[in-house]
Amino acid sequence: MSKIYDIYFKEDIPKYIEIANHLKQLIDSKKIKDGEKLPTIRELSSNLEVNKVTIVNAYKKLQTDGYAYQKVGSGTYAKRKESISSFNREYSKIFKNLSSDDFEKIIDFTGETNSDVYFPMDDFKNVINKVLDRDGANALIIKESLGYENLRKTINNSFWENKIDLNNILIVSGAQQGIDIAAKAIVNINDNVIVEKPTYGGAISVFKWRRANIFEVELEKDGINLIAFEEILKKNNIRCFYTMSYFHNPTGISYSLEKKLKLLELANKYDFYIIEDDYLSELIYSEDIRHEPLKSLDKYERVIYIKSFSKVFLPGIRLGYMITPSSFTESIQRSKINTDIATSSLMQRALELYISEGFWKKNIEYQKNIYKEKYLLMKELINRELGDNVNYIDPLGGLYINLEIKNKDITSKELFYKLKEKNLYITPGVIFFRDSISGEEFFRISFSQASKEKIIKGIELIKEELK
Amino acid sequence: MSKIYDIYFKEDIPKYIEIANHLKQLIDSKKIKDGEKLPTIRELSSNLEVNKVTIVNAYKKLQTDGYAYQKVGSGTYAKRKESISSFNREYSKIFKNLSSDDFEKIIDFTGETNSDVYFPMDDFKNVINKVLDRDGANALIIKESLGYENLRKTINNSFWENKIDLNNILIVSGAQQGIDIAAKAIVNINDNVIVEKPTYGGAISVFKWRRANIFEVELEKDGINLIAFEEILKKNNIRCFYTMSYFHNPTGISYSLEKKLKLLELANKYDFYIIEDDYLSELIYSEDIRHEPLKSLDKYERVIYIKSFSKVFLPGIRLGYMITPSSFTESIQRSKINTDIATSSLMQRALELYISEGFWKKNIEYQKNIYKEKYLLMKELINRELGDNVNYIDPLGGLYINLEIKNKDITSKELFYKLKEKNLYITPGVIFFRDSISGEEFFRISFSQASKEKIIKGIELIKEELK
Repeated sequence: MSKIYDIYFKEDIPKYIEIANHLKQLIDSKKIKDGEKLPTIRELSSNLEVNKVTIVNAYKKLQTDGYAYQKVGSGTYAKRKESISSFNREYSKIFKNLSSDDFEKIIDFTGETNSDVYFPMDDFKNVINKVLDRDGANALIIKESLGYENLRKTINNSFWENKIDLNNILIVSGAQQGIDIAAKAIVNINDNVIVEKPTYGGAISVFKWRRANIFEVELEKDGINLIAFEEILKKNNIRCFYTMSYFHNPTGISYSLEKKLKLLELANKYDFYIIEDDYLSELIYSEDIRHEPLKSLDKYERVIYIKSFSKVFLPGIRLGYMITPSSFTESIQRSKINTDIATSSLMQRALELYISEGFWKKNIEYQKNIYKEKYLLMKELINRELGDNVNYIDPLGGLYINLEIKNKDITSKELFYKLKEKNLYITPGVIFFRDSISGEEFFRISFSQASKEKIIKGIELIKEELK
Repeated sequence: MSKIYDIYFKEDIPKYIEIANHLKQLIDSKKIKDGEKLPTIRELSSNLEVNKVTIVNAYKKLQTDGYAYQKVGSGTYAKRKESISSFNREYSKIFKNLSSDDFEKIIDFTGETNSDVYFPMDDFKNVINKVLDRDGANALIIKESLGYENLRKTINNSFWENKIDLNNILIVSGAQQGIDIAAKAIVNINDNVIVEKPTYGGAISVFKWRRANIFEVELEKDGINLIAFEEILKKNNIRCFYTMSYFHNPTGISYSLEKKLKLLELANKYDFYIIEDDYLSELIYSEDIRHEPLKSLDKYERVIYIKSFSKVFLPGIRLGYMITPSSFTESIQRSKINTDIATSSLMQRALELYISEGFWKKNIEYQKNIYKEKYLLMKELINRELGDNVNYIDPLGGLYINLEIKNKDITSKELFYKLKEKNLYITPGVIFFRDSISGEEFFRISFSQASKEKIIKGIELIKEELK
């Protein structure tokens, strides 16, 4: 056996820990390669003159710490610690390192939320002060795990015609927390979960934390491929399906009514639940799309509905809500309490007043007009300038358009790097896929953060590269 | 086999689901008892005239849904769905149903956080408006996953003499979220975790979600029993230890310097991490206690430090911070992003200004004086009125005192119900134990929500019951 495995044991540290630490160093320093088979337990125990149990424990520790994995019947293999792909890591670092000055210079086609310039700050400041005057210290002291009761009532009244049982509405700190809480309440280890392919990475992370088995099903232009979906249902006991029913990220697809109804039938027939992430549906630009989320059609009590207020309202406010089927209300409430007790109280009170005094509706209308203009401009430019080079499905709403590169000469990752040199930032499709292969032919461009001038300039730059 | 198992299958539902649903109904309706052995796969498959695989799948589904468990080599057993004890459930419901009018009438000895009457609202309102004037929409739009940078700097400067690497400070939405995020980042399935006995139920829930194995070690008056602790370390590969180092809830115990140093040595020797929940250490009433958290002594980089701002400041504000060892910084940051993206921005900015302009220190001093008086009063009354009936360890700080009933004629749960009849609410020890047996001789009384008059009256009521 290679000399690298030799250790001079110290007196005061348990040997299995010393062996594990030694092996970690060898893996970190690449003396043992990623995926390399480690010595057998017998070999290493005789080489180091220790008990076999000591090696078993050392290997167990390596596995726990993410430095090794076991293949049944074959042995233990080294694993370099790296939980997200290096490109995803690089992609997110690039944005971390941009200053606000940089953002003035660049063209940002990556935006996923609304832009600060369309937010009338004074309205909100007034609302906050009204709350502080009205509620005093209560606005900051009281914590309600379900959320501020008046906000839950206002949501029910303004968005759901008071049709929801108030106990089933829970305020959360944004949609990501909603997914986390839902998963904690309903998904257990080795449960099977279906997601759309591609899907939101933040949801995948949550299901992985729950140690769920994840199945992916391809999207068609009106929602998931139901034949492939039912094939999985027939063969596997599925616990839940995670979906973005409107303006799916990144494809921009919305579900047809037919598919939504069929999904609910399947959920009832095969006894699974649907986590519906309805994150951008305020921004509908066409009468061809009606806002009819799965939850509104949910006669079987199969849908856990999650709505973010951060996407079209104020990203920094971190607010959203969930609607749960009655059977899960208690477990989801407990899950919320054990996740962060409750959501910030003042912000809830301010949002409640903002909605009930009519500011919310006014602001959404205002934003919708602005974004619709930018959407129409971007679509027109794509048709005119990029028509020979890309295909796309018209989202008819939301904040971005997903483009497919016709000519496969360039991958979306390569395109990303080339455009970055010219100060234009796009989102390459690979970001949205779990393997590191898919998504190379897609890229997403958003009009939320870019002015009209920048949209025109950006499309020009893309045209140059794709020619 | 009993007739109850018979099913008339429908055409359009997979048989295994129908069988599982049928069994769930039998368990819910108590026709099958909790813990009762279910028929063997062979028996049920021949009885229902279906394939054995169908029964295997039905039993798997029951397990996934929490309606059954398997004993290796013995079979499958029914389990009634109930994840927290009925008393804990009842206890929390009692408080949910109290209105604010009720709170005026009752004597509340259950408080775990500070009281609204000691919060100077105007200072905070001014601070919020300053932030809104200064930062405009940015105060609500920008989300920073690590937290608002100036707040992280101010925390480092005001509480840690700028000794912490800023990258290792992460803002979280309260201590509960800190525990959840830490667990997601470092605890994996089947990892071993040690907790104090008793400990905080919210931490137990988090570790259970991570499917950790939980070991409990008894507390002594200066911290955990280190002999029992090291026995566990010797025999098991421990991943982390969760501790409340100051004014442990509910016992009120603080760790001695000696035990803290020894703990850190052990963490280094046995390669585990310490999650230090430092939640009430602002409220020290005696010079015998110095604030020296494990983190400040952590030369081996073994401590994940969690500090809540909600306990002594504003419970409704949901803010706290973590300090991570450098080796975990990246995974903990990712864990935060996938939990709720970021914490509410405006509240962070307001808190930053509140601390940096000196209001924080002023308010803590003010609160400390008030609570110290109430603590001294309660202690004096306990010594004088309850001396024959209870033992206690003087906490010398915090918001409550934990009492042991000398005469075991009455359990703390019985005492709770009797005092509740007289409008006095205490916290019985059973709430803090995982089994439903321990804690019957302890109850916790808090002086945070009760006026001096109510403290006097409350101790009188307890005296009457314990006589």
